[in-house]
Amino acid sequence: MASQATRSAHLHEGGAGRHDIDPAFVARVIGCVGDRDAPGLRALLLPLHPADSAEVLHQVAPDIRAAVVHLIGADLDADVYAELSVETREEVLKLLPARVVGRLLAELDSDDAAAVAADVDEEQLDEVLANVPDEDRAVLEQSLSFEEETAGRLMQREFVAAPEHWSVGDAIDHMRKVGDDLPDRFFEIYIVDPAWRPLGAVALAPFLKAGRQVPLLDLMEPAQVLIRSDMDQEEVAYLFSKYHLHSAPVVDEGGRIKGMITLDDIVTVVEEERGEDLLALAGVGTDGDNAGDSVVGNLRARTPWLAVNLFTALLASTAISMFEATIEEIVALAVLMPIVASLGGNTGTQTLAVAVRALAQRDLTAVNAARVILREVTTGSLNGLIFGLLLALVAGLWFQSAGISLAVGLAVVINLTAAGLAGILVPLTLKRFGADPAVASSVFVTFVTDLIGFSAFLGLATVILLQ
Amino acid sequence: MASQATRSAHLHEGGAGRHDIDPAFVARVIGCVGDRDAPGLRALLLPLHPADSAEVLHQVAPDIRAAVVHLIGADLDADVYAELSVETREEVLKLLPARVVGRLLAELDSDDAAAVAADVDEEQLDEVLANVPDEDRAVLEQSLSFEEETAGRLMQREFVAAPEHWSVGDAIDHMRKVGDDLPDRFFEIYIVDPAWRPLGAVALAPFLKAGRQVPLLDLMEPAQVLIRSDMDQEEVAYLFSKYHLHSAPVVDEGGRIKGMITLDDIVTVVEEERGEDLLALAGVGTDGDNAGDSVVGNLRARTPWLAVNLFTALLASTAISMFEATIEEIVALAVLMPIVASLGGNTGTQTLAVAVRALAQRDLTAVNAARVILREVTTGSLNGLIFGLLLALVAGLWFQSAGISLAVGLAVVINLTAAGLAGILVPLTLKRFGADPAVASSVFVTFVTDLIGFSAFLGLATVILLQ
Repeated sequence: MASQATRSAHLHEGGAGRHDIDPAFVARVIGCVGDRDAPGLRALLLPLHPADSAEVLHQVAPDIRAAVVHLIGADLDADVYAELSVETREEVLKLLPARVVGRLLAELDSDDAAAVAADVDEEQLDEVLANVPDEDRAVLEQSLSFEEETAGRLMQREFVAAPEHWSVGDAIDHMRKVGDDLPDRFFEIYIVDPAWRPLGAVALAPFLKAGRQVPLLDLMEPAQVLIRSDMDQEEVAYLFSKYHLHSAPVVDEGGRIKGMITLDDIVTVVEEERGEDLLALAGVGTDGDNAGDSVVGNLRARTPWLAVNLFTALLASTAISMFEATIEEIVALAVLMPIVASLGGNTGTQTLAVAVRALAQRDLTAVNAARVILREVTTGSLNGLIFGLLLALVAGLWFQSAGISLAVGLAVVINLTAAGLAGILVPLTLKRFGADPAVASSVFVTFVTDLIGFSAFLGLATVILLQ
Repeated sequence: MASQATRSAHLHEGGAGRHDIDPAFVARVIGCVGDRDAPGLRALLLPLHPADSAEVLHQVAPDIRAAVVHLIGADLDADVYAELSVETREEVLKLLPARVVGRLLAELDSDDAAAVAADVDEEQLDEVLANVPDEDRAVLEQSLSFEEETAGRLMQREFVAAPEHWSVGDAIDHMRKVGDDLPDRFFEIYIVDPAWRPLGAVALAPFLKAGRQVPLLDLMEPAQVLIRSDMDQEEVAYLFSKYHLHSAPVVDEGGRIKGMITLDDIVTVVEEERGEDLLALAGVGTDGDNAGDSVVGNLRARTPWLAVNLFTALLASTAISMFEATIEEIVALAVLMPIVASLGGNTGTQTLAVAVRALAQRDLTAVNAARVILREVTTGSLNGLIFGLLLALVAGLWFQSAGISLAVGLAVVINLTAAGLAGILVPLTLKRFGADPAVASSVFVTFVTDLIGFSAFLGLATVILLQ
């Protein structure tokens, strides 16, 4: 293995200390592909940290990526494949022979192997698994038997456990003896009963401070949280984050330890889930992780919610059609009506973002929901007063009509109050019914604020100006 | 200290295995406050994990929280204060005497102490610091001298370092000797030269597998990344996530080790930054972390961007006012025009969310920007074709006019193409000028799609129907 010191040589530090990838380096990779220069590609990519090689593969166009994999895919560190995004991984694994993929899987830690294997084409999977050595395959098939996005999929099978009667010295002797069978990284020794049920854990720091004769039980912290293998990964991430865990044992239904999850895997989960919130809120589907990676993926992720949006926009516009006669008489209303809707839409989206974040961080619960709802509605009303007054002023000066001024001012107050209410109730309702509170909730909230904005303004104008 | 096994006794596991806080438990806390029952509160809250006590304090109303702190604030574990959100912490620290706050700070790890001290009221800070023992105060003042949201603020001063000539046995003997002066948790031993510059690190796992006589240099991985104390915390989080680090040394300008950052602090940063993206995109300011915690905080965070929104909405509506004569003639245009704008707004927001996520994850860079822009514009155009056709059909049937149908169809194609372009160019431009690409970019994108939606539709209708 090359020295790690040279591994990040292609990274340049920008003014703000950013470690971004160097476009010149990527250009050299593309140059080697043009020359079909496999040794050149190896010289460039193999010394890199796997995360950096993966980043280069992400950055280049799909045809360049395919060429790199064709030329030197079998020589890349197996970890490079573990670092790729799901869609990129699916794409490149198809280009490799089953024999190579099988070997790569055997080289990976069990949690990474499961993640990579999950992206192997269904039709190719049996052949790939046939190329994995028996022992690794049994572990891998067991990992794959857990549902995606559960603790079982995240956990690695390698962990360190000790019986409750051992001393520090016993544990050190044991670890020196088994050596290479230990996980590459671990932060705790799990103390288990004879049925392999975890009783607690000894962190390595106190372990190292203690003398050989100290019983492990004296250093043990009782198990804080027990993670069942079927627990949703978002829940696992919440527990890690809340209790500042660096690793935790995973148990089966019988409470027997089956593996461990480490915090670095959790960081990936947290980043994924947060990105999903952002996309879901904007009405971008995230199933299959294909949002943004290709035009077809884009369309599949976005077109459905635009269809919903077309439907709700048509519904909202029927409110306008009911007041066609009024608009024909006072065309200024057509000019002002989108402003009322826009202020409402933005107020609703603001509330929504705060609510979705609070739900994700468990800051919004049954205990404080009533208080939060009241606060959001109050905020909406107060902003309604501020901007209602402002817009009434502008509209009065612009169209020289006290009636229009009054109608638009009142409509803004009504709509921004409704926006505050909808912005908090829509995600709470989605959550109550077990749906993701972020999914396309902005489409629904905007529907409410459009509908109320148009009806309130045109209705008030009709009453004030025409009756 | 109570057994940790009983510490989460108040957590109930819901159907989906969720560890949510039990409303009945919160009710008992509130009951004790009503009775001014300090011993009762102590019995409820002190056995909890600090993260759980903090969660209870977050959930209750501000007056209940104040009463709890008045009654038993000095008895709470110092870590409870480290777990509170910034605004809640500011609020409760004001209620405690400087003497108590000083003692709490001395009990915390140096990174947590700096975080808590940063939220002490400016006027009270000197008095609080005077109550911190000399040695802790020096460390704390040094931590506070780093800017907020930098590596210097995140790092803890406690770490384990060894000279390059030591063996495993030397290190074990040293750790057993210094004992309590070691950090509570550490995952690596940093190998330093005589000037305390880190050469690399020995992870605890290989350290434990090796025999006493093995030189540390044989186990050392050269330093992968060096984190400067002035590095932005978002950059630090990126490096931890990318290279799967569990801890890393922090160095000063001279490259000398000053402290270490551990991954659990990074999880907090990642969660903060992601939440900020969500809020920023929706036009909610996040300075001072006061978004959502009180009506005044709400207004301060949201009113400025609504003002920008009012301004841009007024600008967009001047486009409508230019076509007043057309609308007076064909009032159906007023009904359809918000639909064109709404489809554009949603398309723009979808693109924006994808772009903001890609920028945050460094998936969108100088290397692939041209490709991503092309992909987003193509996606916008294709969705424009799909929904232009659909809306043309609906409008044709609804208003029985081929001209209206043609105008609305073409306008949707134009607007959704523009939406794709604006959705990617607005955040890229903000980023280019050093601004947060998420900040209120949806306000700007919606302005573009409103303006183009209104002008294109009304302009086309005027040309097709009235000329």
